[in-house]
Amino acid sequence: MAYSVADREYMSRALELAAQGRFTTTPNPSVGCVLVVDDKIVGEGFTRPVGGNHAEIEALNGAFLKASDIKGATAYVTLEPCSHTGKTGPCVQALIDAGISRAVIACEDPNPNVAGAGIQLLEAAGIEVACGLYEDQARELNKGFIKRHEQGLPWVVVKIAASLDGRTAMASGQSQWITTPASRKDVQRLRAANCAIITGIGTQLMDDPSLTVRITHEDVGVEDSLRQPLRVVVDSKLQMSPEARMFAQPGDTLIATIDGLEQREKAPALEASGAAVVFLPARDGHVDLYELLLELARRECNSVMVEAGAGLAGGFVAEGLLDELVCYWAPKLFGSDARPMFELPIQTIDAHLALAVKDMRQIGEDIRITLRPDKDY
Amino acid sequence: MAYSVADREYMSRALELAAQGRFTTTPNPSVGCVLVVDDKIVGEGFTRPVGGNHAEIEALNGAFLKASDIKGATAYVTLEPCSHTGKTGPCVQALIDAGISRAVIACEDPNPNVAGAGIQLLEAAGIEVACGLYEDQARELNKGFIKRHEQGLPWVVVKIAASLDGRTAMASGQSQWITTPASRKDVQRLRAANCAIITGIGTQLMDDPSLTVRITHEDVGVEDSLRQPLRVVVDSKLQMSPEARMFAQPGDTLIATIDGLEQREKAPALEASGAAVVFLPARDGHVDLYELLLELARRECNSVMVEAGAGLAGGFVAEGLLDELVCYWAPKLFGSDARPMFELPIQTIDAHLALAVKDMRQIGEDIRITLRPDKDY
Repeated sequence: MAYSVADREYMSRALELAAQGRFTTTPNPSVGCVLVVDDKIVGEGFTRPVGGNHAEIEALNGAFLKASDIKGATAYVTLEPCSHTGKTGPCVQALIDAGISRAVIACEDPNPNVAGAGIQLLEAAGIEVACGLYEDQARELNKGFIKRHEQGLPWVVVKIAASLDGRTAMASGQSQWITTPASRKDVQRLRAANCAIITGIGTQLMDDPSLTVRITHEDVGVEDSLRQPLRVVVDSKLQMSPEARMFAQPGDTLIATIDGLEQREKAPALEASGAAVVFLPARDGHVDLYELLLELARRECNSVMVEAGAGLAGGFVAEGLLDELVCYWAPKLFGSDARPMFELPIQTIDAHLALAVKDMRQIGEDIRITLRPDKDY
Repeated sequence: MAYSVADREYMSRALELAAQGRFTTTPNPSVGCVLVVDDKIVGEGFTRPVGGNHAEIEALNGAFLKASDIKGATAYVTLEPCSHTGKTGPCVQALIDAGISRAVIACEDPNPNVAGAGIQLLEAAGIEVACGLYEDQARELNKGFIKRHEQGLPWVVVKIAASLDGRTAMASGQSQWITTPASRKDVQRLRAANCAIITGIGTQLMDDPSLTVRITHEDVGVEDSLRQPLRVVVDSKLQMSPEARMFAQPGDTLIATIDGLEQREKAPALEASGAAVVFLPARDGHVDLYELLLELARRECNSVMVEAGAGLAGGFVAEGLLDELVCYWAPKLFGSDARPMFELPIQTIDAHLALAVKDMRQIGEDIRITLRPDKDY
């Protein structure tokens, strides 16, 4: 399929709009839509938070407000329009009713409730459909949504703050602060973009963190208000105190533990503090992390961010559950007695875990490097 | 002192020329010179390898070859011209004899044999002298030469190849190869730019390295041939074998050890293999690294590069002898059993060693970050 320069420009605009929703649309995907008549944009929009309009409806409403005639319009949509009725009506029907004659779609919806059905309905209504323009970019924007629907697992980001020599805490456990305020503000953006923040009981007991988003939608340049991601504490023995600071914070806390007498006894006090407790299968005496991810996907988390110590973070890496590693490096040396980046036993050099650099930049005085597993991982 | 735009352009050119000598002029400084008459360059040059012409003579010769009249010329020189007669005659006299009327100099020569005397002689001959234009850049080009003359110590670069989690070898000592061929070629450039390569007996026995420069002047884009830096093995007990691979390589090897019966007994066999052996004061039973650096400065090393394991590299860092750290990071995880970047005992987070990022880039699939100690180091 050959696309015109105009097609590329309008789809780029639709992707730009889609990005407006990257902090706020989950569990729905972030979608952008542009309606074009006679080489002019007559309406555009992006998906609003759950219960609000999808991108296509926003774009149609914009065009109707301006009383534009959209018969014969081309609709540029970054994800296949939905054909099912969820919290809102199906977008496919709205586009057909509005009389568009062509639809250019970046990528198919992986949601089994849609999965090609939207495109079929458009074609059945006599609309010309082209699919695949800037597919990679569109998939990247919704990598969590897509992974959850394709694999039943959320996209897993492990965030690390380390010294230059790869240490994440002193031998005593002391780790505040490794990086500068500029990096910690950047971490806030990362938190805001994820559906859940996972930490371990070790970090919880050592730092008593809030794990909240403390920036606003204005700080990240989007229209809709940011939400608090679900806080998840992996606490196999249920050692967490009902007095923990995070219970007093806005947003929800989920404590993941294993099923046992001790845990069943302690759970009610934590639940009384406002937490939810989930009992998951064990693996080597700890919460099975794969089972935890399945559970979080069932709870409609598209993406999760692990902010934990070397043990739990190392667990996600060792079990091959990592999708993205975001390292904040402070230009400091902590020395060889300090704690490692990951508890990860590897003996021979050929058995190393291979990653590939996706992005690298300075954040204040620190360095941020984003990596993803190499294809051999 | 206000400099014209033309002054800035010609001095920039002089700095560019000076950089041509950065692999080849030591123990002399890398200097560039541009001669300008009526806003035209009539001659330019850079310092050639020891015994060859200094930059000023190269520039004058160029002008004479073209039969240019250089009476009343302005000379742009990146370092104060020499006033003493070394292997070549003093450049100051040559400039005076040629009849220049103005000299613009980037920085004073720290060499106590020059140190302002060159400028005084120029002024005494009625030549207008301005000094300080682009001084920082000029000092940067000759940081090793300047440090040696100001402090009696060479500039110390520690080079590290590490995994993303800060490991420089597996627990077994295995470390070949951490980084990709692109990084290893980049290390060759770094070797070529230094007067000596320091390694430890541990690395020598484990890897039996050649420690040679295996690229040519064409690879680095300069005119003069590259030299082999002095290879220095820190070997407190003189465990090195007379069969070591580096003895068969072009260039010189120096073995630094401490004075003792055992060492005195073993030295002749190593000397017979072509090495020089130097007996240095001990510190905690090992070669005192500060004494080693003093010795290398006495041997006219402007800059040295440490390519060693966590113990020796950590020693340079722990003793505050580091001027620059060049880290090559492979995007791989080696795990928490692997060896640290530096053997460096630090207990509290406030006692960390602070560095600042000078440069950061991707080298093939790896990342190279250059850091220097922060002012608090």
